[in-house]
Amino acid sequence: MEKEIIVQKFGGSSVANIDRIKNVAQRVIAYKNKHTDVAVVVSALGDTTDELEALAFGLSKTPPEREMDMLLSTGEQISCALLAIAIKELGYDAISFTGRQVGIKTDKTHTKARIITIDGKRIRDAFKHDKIVIVAGYQGVTANDEITTLGRGGSDLTAVALAKALKAKVCEIYTDVDGIYTTDPRIVKEARKIRNITFEEMLEMASLGAQVMQARSIEVAKRFNITLHVRSSFSKEEGTMITNEKMEEIAVRGITCNKNEAKITITSVPDKPGVAAKLFEEISKQGINVDTIVQNVPHDKLSDISFTVPKGDLAKAIKATSVIGNKIGAGEVLEDKDIARVSLVGSGMRSHSGIAAKMFATLADNHINIGMITTSEISVSCIIAQDMADKAVKALHKAFKLEQI
Amino acid sequence: MEKEIIVQKFGGSSVANIDRIKNVAQRVIAYKNKHTDVAVVVSALGDTTDELEALAFGLSKTPPEREMDMLLSTGEQISCALLAIAIKELGYDAISFTGRQVGIKTDKTHTKARIITIDGKRIRDAFKHDKIVIVAGYQGVTANDEITTLGRGGSDLTAVALAKALKAKVCEIYTDVDGIYTTDPRIVKEARKIRNITFEEMLEMASLGAQVMQARSIEVAKRFNITLHVRSSFSKEEGTMITNEKMEEIAVRGITCNKNEAKITITSVPDKPGVAAKLFEEISKQGINVDTIVQNVPHDKLSDISFTVPKGDLAKAIKATSVIGNKIGAGEVLEDKDIARVSLVGSGMRSHSGIAAKMFATLADNHINIGMITTSEISVSCIIAQDMADKAVKALHKAFKLEQI
Repeated sequence: MEKEIIVQKFGGSSVANIDRIKNVAQRVIAYKNKHTDVAVVVSALGDTTDELEALAFGLSKTPPEREMDMLLSTGEQISCALLAIAIKELGYDAISFTGRQVGIKTDKTHTKARIITIDGKRIRDAFKHDKIVIVAGYQGVTANDEITTLGRGGSDLTAVALAKALKAKVCEIYTDVDGIYTTDPRIVKEARKIRNITFEEMLEMASLGAQVMQARSIEVAKRFNITLHVRSSFSKEEGTMITNEKMEEIAVRGITCNKNEAKITITSVPDKPGVAAKLFEEISKQGINVDTIVQNVPHDKLSDISFTVPKGDLAKAIKATSVIGNKIGAGEVLEDKDIARVSLVGSGMRSHSGIAAKMFATLADNHINIGMITTSEISVSCIIAQDMADKAVKALHKAFKLEQI
Repeated sequence: MEKEIIVQKFGGSSVANIDRIKNVAQRVIAYKNKHTDVAVVVSALGDTTDELEALAFGLSKTPPEREMDMLLSTGEQISCALLAIAIKELGYDAISFTGRQVGIKTDKTHTKARIITIDGKRIRDAFKHDKIVIVAGYQGVTANDEITTLGRGGSDLTAVALAKALKAKVCEIYTDVDGIYTTDPRIVKEARKIRNITFEEMLEMASLGAQVMQARSIEVAKRFNITLHVRSSFSKEEGTMITNEKMEEIAVRGITCNKNEAKITITSVPDKPGVAAKLFEEISKQGINVDTIVQNVPHDKLSDISFTVPKGDLAKAIKATSVIGNKIGAGEVLEDKDIARVSLVGSGMRSHSGIAAKMFATLADNHINIGMITTSEISVSCIIAQDMADKAVKALHKAFKLEQI
């Protein structure tokens, strides 16, 4: 019988010190003892990446990206060697590999490279010799033998891509929370852990502000139908399974809240074809992602346009908007940093009607004013005042009975 | 006209923090501006290697050597990326490489691998594009793509081997002292910096206790006749040139003092052929290097044998000696940790006679008793009481007028 293969990914907080590395070693061995081949992907120890970045930025405000990849890829190489040492100390055979050594080939986009292929030959060879394999996450190598890194959340991506290459049964993502919650438990103490969620719902939650996993890794898992299991490295409890399977279609699976956006309004925009296009073309040229856009019904052939951008891009976006505003003869450019996006997510929305209406009514009952609204097939979002956000999330969590799921 | 090529190696203390890395960047650029191609070899930042070792030994008393190489090789990768960032920030083009990327192929002896070949193609290509090249010291890769390290002083070895591969004019070894001194300036304040020294003398001094460079790198430089220039990274002054050239043959080039040995004496050894051989065979089997050996003239067919070993190996050596002592029916095994070896080194000893006699007379005039004596072609060593060592070095430095060189 062929052995089952499992891929396990441990984040930086799971390997932050010697005791935690030993803890991870024991967890890995527990799986190995179930007659399973285990490939482990590790992130850099605790704050290593931040410390290395601080050194680089102490030398240059704009350190070259190729050199940043040389620098930052060492963090994962350190943690995978240490985990291999810890596992061998417990009497099990283990071997660590860099991204390059297991043939993770990427394109040339330093600091945010894309994986092109994974060979994985050395991993399969090591499995044949009954070794536990530890792979440095977050990194690969170009066809020209240059070291690359995969960007934020890159170790998750390494794990998912390895699971695909090795035909693993499941890819476990160990983190410092024990799964995906109906909403942030720090805001709503009745928040419940979600047992099962679809890729689609998880992607929507990630894009709307849930921070457990990066959207990119979930997309790859969805494409190749790799079951993800998000769970805690500090407890043995099961976490959240992310799959393609649609169980019972729950209308609202979770509630997200994003306080990292700002709103820009440009007033008295001439209501002529192509004017809005010009504005958003210019903003997009600056590399800024615009989210929700709302245009008022025009009065006297003039309308107001509002849109949201990430807070970090606000200054750049205000500048671009002002330049275009002058060109097209619009009015003022206004900003509002004190907003929050509160969203309901659930693939059952497709078949359940009335979700949006109930959301608006709940907010109204709680005297919360809605500034902007957007919807997708499986989500409804309202932009509201930031100081109302926690109140809104609590009210919605109760109204949709998420504590009973 | 072909450009001159220089190899510069900077030790860990030269790149211990951001300001020192910037200082190194400026020094490197100063050479680049002389129309010279520069390949720089760097050690790990300050205490990085010690910190990584502490993590590994926190997990295991005997961490596997392959994993130690994975772990420790990151230290040099970090410092070479940082130096490349610092140089680019000053407006000069630079590129960092791991040992593997420049084709440093080694044997499979993890933690103390030997360099087999250096390709260096990527360095020559980078020179063609007018780049300053930074190479991670202390590391290479086996034919099977396993990362190896070169052992203590490994970055010096990388620099010397690169100088050979690139046909460099000179290999500069930057350190925290400004050259090789006639003796330790902390003992004799009149000690003078030696301008020129031969490989042979330098090797003798290194083996007798001078700690600036490892013997292994000097041997390689000697074999390929690569001029070494040992100098300070904190001053612009010239340091010490190590070459094959014999200038004026000075009888005594320098004085070394080694306090890290201990003496073992085994009494009443039967004076029969093969007895001493048995003893030293057993000690050598334990991997202990025996230095000076002295055997008394036998009385009543019994003689005493004394020899020195590194202090760290004393317990093991005592044990082995006692075992053999019992077998051959010898007397007691005595130890003495309070010894020092004071040595005169100079290739001129070959043609100057009377050096040893003058040394003994100087020690006698200063009431310093000599326990053991050894000589080589270019050195004379006396084992004396450790608390007399500084006095002996001072007296000899003066007697041989080393302050006037």
